[in-house]
Amino acid sequence: MTLAAGFRERLAESAAANRSQLVVGLDVTPESLPAHLSRDAHGVLTFNRAVVESTADLVSGYKLNFAFFQALGAEGWEVLYATRRLIPRRLLTIADAKLGDIGNSSKLYAKAVFGDLDFDAVTLSPYVGREGLQPFLDQASKGSFILCRTSNRDGSLQDVETGGASLYERVASTVAEWGPNAGLVVGATDIGALRRVRELAPEAPLLVPGVGAQGGNLEATIDSLRGGGPALIAMSRAVILSSGGPDFATAARDAAERFARAMPAEWAAA
Amino acid sequence: MTLAAGFRERLAESAAANRSQLVVGLDVTPESLPAHLSRDAHGVLTFNRAVVESTADLVSGYKLNFAFFQALGAEGWEVLYATRRLIPRRLLTIADAKLGDIGNSSKLYAKAVFGDLDFDAVTLSPYVGREGLQPFLDQASKGSFILCRTSNRDGSLQDVETGGASLYERVASTVAEWGPNAGLVVGATDIGALRRVRELAPEAPLLVPGVGAQGGNLEATIDSLRGGGPALIAMSRAVILSSGGPDFATAARDAAERFARAMPAEWAAA
Repeated sequence: MTLAAGFRERLAESAAANRSQLVVGLDVTPESLPAHLSRDAHGVLTFNRAVVESTADLVSGYKLNFAFFQALGAEGWEVLYATRRLIPRRLLTIADAKLGDIGNSSKLYAKAVFGDLDFDAVTLSPYVGREGLQPFLDQASKGSFILCRTSNRDGSLQDVETGGASLYERVASTVAEWGPNAGLVVGATDIGALRRVRELAPEAPLLVPGVGAQGGNLEATIDSLRGGGPALIAMSRAVILSSGGPDFATAARDAAERFARAMPAEWAAA
Repeated sequence: MTLAAGFRERLAESAAANRSQLVVGLDVTPESLPAHLSRDAHGVLTFNRAVVESTADLVSGYKLNFAFFQALGAEGWEVLYATRRLIPRRLLTIADAKLGDIGNSSKLYAKAVFGDLDFDAVTLSPYVGREGLQPFLDQASKGSFILCRTSNRDGSLQDVETGGASLYERVASTVAEWGPNAGLVVGATDIGALRRVRELAPEAPLLVPGVGAQGGNLEATIDSLRGGGPALIAMSRAVILSSGGPDFATAARDAAERFARAMPAEWAAA
């Protein structure tokens, strides 16, 4: 298999693999594991393996939120590496770490996430400015999804008026000029904001969490994303925690299939 | 030893331990280790142990930037835990992770950083808004230093005009009302901004990086911090990488002593 040269090609390649725009977040804690698994780091890895095996022909990729691995204690990082290695090479891998540091620290994070862990993309926080995020943006084959409008209720800083545009709108128009591997994270919990971001950054790849457990409506989300650049819809609990019993992997597959079928994927395979 | 009830008491206690306001950042990469140490995770831990042992009677505490541990690969997290355990209990420990996520993820990060790792304080990024940071702020005995004005040159988003105040000024006045355990990170590379933040948040604890390798002037920094709440001056390379030879620990001690003596620590011990 040859590797895609740029992130946009990589995105298209992973979307084409299963003609899907669903990204599954492997957001599980020991406490939320099915009762027959051990409620520890080992149980989490067993769970992640089963979910990946049962959904890998239905999704565009997987999103690993670092919080869930850090919360596993000292061995959490080993579980992150092991989970990363479970994911088939044709599918997209997103390090959901909301990183945002400067200078040398930013370079080291980019090395860890894109080098050692070999993720295809990362989520970043914009507060440090472009210079701080540049070590990520510099890697043309890797993608950076910058937080724009998050799916929590209090995004007050994001709504601050900045001379004719709210802060999140300013982030959208700014990132739209950062090149083809710079994307945005926009929550599905505010469809108006989703449409606005699509207007301001029509070609930017979007990563859209918040459908399902957080309250975002799938149909309205899909409708607001039509006609622009690539969009990935990230779902976690609504897929992976569909059943708390021994049938959890089959239930996750059924949920993933249902959601993936409800998405158009029209921008996917060429 | 009894533990301080609130973060402000904990801050005062750690500052009083050595009558110092110097926080040493253990920011070392395998490549920057003295030549006689192994250039790997084990070498980093050996280095950190020697630096902590040689400076623990001179500083207010230590700052661990997660980037330096993540860049060590799968075993980096074990080195983070091991380094954390090296630090004497009377001194302050800061998890410099620039975290900023929402909901459940934010709770898990708070569990990892304040629970499992038992850091006294953390650095956070403000973009997700107060709701996202609340799981950290909820812990009265722990401190949250929120990014306000970073020490990199391009903090363009931080300078955006938001109706009579720049974004960083708005963050300063907002965080000033978040309670006694909410502090701010302000780089020493812009003394004007440092004075402005002190005005807007006179009582907030400040964490001030950027002196030394990044170009901030120590005397001007100290001068701009007089008369307000507690301030911690964070220095890394200028202390720990003073010598690249076998005398690195002694050289780090000499540098820490020189810098600590140049600081007033008048707010420290009562």
